[in-house]
Amino acid sequence: MNRRSFLKSAGVAGSAGAAVLATPAIAQERKTVTIVSSFPRDFPGLGMSAQRLAQRITDLSDGRLQTEYFAAGERIGAFDVFDEVASGNAQAYISADYYWIGKDPAFAYFTSVPFGMTMPEWNAWIKFKGGQELWDKVSGNFDLKALPCGGTGTQMGGWFNVEIESVDDLKGLKMRIPGLGSTVMTKLGVSVVSLPGGQIYENLVAGAIEAAEWVGPYNDYFMKFYEAAKYYYMAGMHEPGGGNAFGMNKDWWSSLSNWEQAIIEAACMEENAAMNEEFLANNGLYLQKLVDDHGTVLKQFNDETWDAFGEAAAEVFEETRSQSALVAEVDDHYRAALSELGTFRMGAEIAYSNQRNRVLGL
Amino acid sequence: MNRRSFLKSAGVAGSAGAAVLATPAIAQERKTVTIVSSFPRDFPGLGMSAQRLAQRITDLSDGRLQTEYFAAGERIGAFDVFDEVASGNAQAYISADYYWIGKDPAFAYFTSVPFGMTMPEWNAWIKFKGGQELWDKVSGNFDLKALPCGGTGTQMGGWFNVEIESVDDLKGLKMRIPGLGSTVMTKLGVSVVSLPGGQIYENLVAGAIEAAEWVGPYNDYFMKFYEAAKYYYMAGMHEPGGGNAFGMNKDWWSSLSNWEQAIIEAACMEENAAMNEEFLANNGLYLQKLVDDHGTVLKQFNDETWDAFGEAAAEVFEETRSQSALVAEVDDHYRAALSELGTFRMGAEIAYSNQRNRVLGL
Repeated sequence: MNRRSFLKSAGVAGSAGAAVLATPAIAQERKTVTIVSSFPRDFPGLGMSAQRLAQRITDLSDGRLQTEYFAAGERIGAFDVFDEVASGNAQAYISADYYWIGKDPAFAYFTSVPFGMTMPEWNAWIKFKGGQELWDKVSGNFDLKALPCGGTGTQMGGWFNVEIESVDDLKGLKMRIPGLGSTVMTKLGVSVVSLPGGQIYENLVAGAIEAAEWVGPYNDYFMKFYEAAKYYYMAGMHEPGGGNAFGMNKDWWSSLSNWEQAIIEAACMEENAAMNEEFLANNGLYLQKLVDDHGTVLKQFNDETWDAFGEAAAEVFEETRSQSALVAEVDDHYRAALSELGTFRMGAEIAYSNQRNRVLGL
Repeated sequence: MNRRSFLKSAGVAGSAGAAVLATPAIAQERKTVTIVSSFPRDFPGLGMSAQRLAQRITDLSDGRLQTEYFAAGERIGAFDVFDEVASGNAQAYISADYYWIGKDPAFAYFTSVPFGMTMPEWNAWIKFKGGQELWDKVSGNFDLKALPCGGTGTQMGGWFNVEIESVDDLKGLKMRIPGLGSTVMTKLGVSVVSLPGGQIYENLVAGAIEAAEWVGPYNDYFMKFYEAAKYYYMAGMHEPGGGNAFGMNKDWWSSLSNWEQAIIEAACMEENAAMNEEFLANNGLYLQKLVDDHGTVLKQFNDETWDAFGEAAAEVFEETRSQSALVAEVDDHYRAALSELGTFRMGAEIAYSNQRNRVLGL
C-alpha cells in the first residue's frame, strides 16, 4: 500500500500524515524527478529562475523529491521538452506554453497574448477565476498538467534603428518578433523574421534586421542590443504578462501523494511571484544603465500606432478563435475576466500609480 | 544534537536531509506552532488568508509543524499579538506591521505608506532590493523576525456622503481613516476619527462620521457602507500596496532547521501572492454589484486634491523621518527603490495598461 492510497482510504490529509512519516518505510518513497527546460543554463531571469525552482522542490521536500535539472540542449532541444514529458520520458518541463500553439492555439492564453492580461491580472484569473481549470483542460488533452511558475512582466516593445512616428514607419521593416504578436505586426506590413535569442544581436549589427524585441532591460542589457539599435520602445502590446509553465506528465502528477503535490504547488507559486519580482527589481536599474552608459533613447509608441496594433490584434483573435471550439471557449473566458480585472485595476492601482508618479514627478 | 546543528556541522542542506528523514527519531521533532492573528475569523480576504496560511504550514511540513491558529479575540486581543510573540508566549502572529508604529515608526514601511509602493513594487523591494534586511533590523530590535504573507492591493479612497470637488470640501469632514494616511488628512483639515472596523457602519448610518475608508469593493461590500454613503472614491493615497506580516519570535525562528524555515518561507510567499490575487479576482465583481444593485456612484479624486494630498504627505514624511536615525535610513532606502521601480513600471506595465484599456474601451 503506498502512501497516497493510505491517505485516501483513511480519509485524512495534511497534518494526519505525520504519524506515517515516522516509519522507516517512507525512506523508500524518495523519487527522482527529471526536469527538462527550454531556457539556457544560468541565463539571467528565465534560466536562473528555472534552476532555483528545481532546487527548491528538492529542498522543500527535504530530499524526498530529488530533482535533476537539464537546461536547454543539455539533454534535449529547447522545444522538445513538451513531447519528452507528454511521453513520460521526463516528469516535468519548465517552459512557456505558448511555444505549443502549433499543437493547440489555446496554449497562447496560458503564457501571454497581445492586448492581454498583465501578470497580476493573469494570476488572479488562473488561481481564482477558473483559468487553471481551462489550462488543465487544454494540457489534459496531451496527458499533461501545468502550473504557473514565473513571468517576465510586461515586455518591452523592442529595439529599433529608426523612429516609429506612425504606423507607416512599420511597413517593410524587418523585425524579429515571435508568437501572436508577430501575426499582429505582419498585418501592419512588418516583415517578420524568426530568430532564436542567440542570433538576434549579429543580425541587428549586420543590418539583416532593423528591429527586434526580446524581454526587458534586465535581459536586453546583456544581449548588447544597444550597440546596434538606438531607440528602445518601452511598453509593447505583444507580451503584457502571464507566466511560464511547470508542465508535468499527468499520470506522474496523479501518482503523487497529497503532500508531494502540495510541495510542488508551493514551490511553483513561490517562484511564480519571485521571478516576476526579480525582473521588476532589476529592470529599472538596467534601464538607467542603458540610458546613462550607452545613449539608448527611450520611446513609447504613440496613440495612432497603438490604435493600429489594436485593430490588427482584433483580426488576429478572430482568426485564432475560429480554429476550434476549445480556443473559442478559452478566449471567451479570458476576455470576460480581462474586462472585469482590467476595469477594476484601472480605477485602483493604475489610477493610483498615474497620480503618484505625476505628483512625485517620477 | 538537533537536526539543525547536524545539517550545519555536516555542511549540507536540502536534499542531503533525506537520509536523516528515514530515522524514527524525526517523529520526535513534531512541533506545535501557536499563531495569533489580528484579523477576525472567517473574515473575507484578511481572515480567510490568515487561516489558509496557518493550515498550509501544517500541510507543507507534513504535520511536523503543527499550527494552532487563534483569530482576533480568541486568545488575546487583535493588537496584543506583537507582545505575545515578542515575549515568546506564542511563536507567530499574522497582522499588519504598521499597527506597531507606536513602538517604531519604521514599521509603517513594512506594510504601506501614503504615496508609497504598490504591491508588485513592494515585493520587489522586500525580496530583491534589500527591504527584507531592513525589516529584519527593525523587527530584530524587538526579538522578532517577519516575512511578508499577503496584501489587499491598492486600497480605495473611501466612502463619502458628499462629493469632494476640491480640497476645501475636506475641511471639517469627519472621517474614519487610520495610520499615516490619517495624519495626511488631518493636515488638510479633516476631523479624523479612530474606529475599529466593526463600528464604522453604525457611525456612518448615524451621521457621527461623514466618510470612511476600509479596504476595497470585496471587503467593503459586506460592510454595507453603500447604505450610508453614496460616493465611492476609488484610488486612495493612503495604502497603495505592501503586505501583511508573519511575525515570528526570533529565538524560535533561529531554533528551526533549514528545512522548517524553508517550509515557512514558501508558505508565506505562496500566500503573499494568493491573498492579493484573491482580492483582485473579487474586487471587480463586487464593484459592479455596488454600482448595479446599490446605486453606488464611483468617483476619483481630481488632480488638485491629489496635489494637496502630496504636499501634506511630504510634511508627514519629514516629521516621520526626524523621529530616529533608523526611520530615516529606512525612508531613504524606500524612496530610492520607489523612484527606480515606480519610474520603470510607469514606462512598462502602467503605460501598457493605460493604452490597452484605452484601445479596448475598458
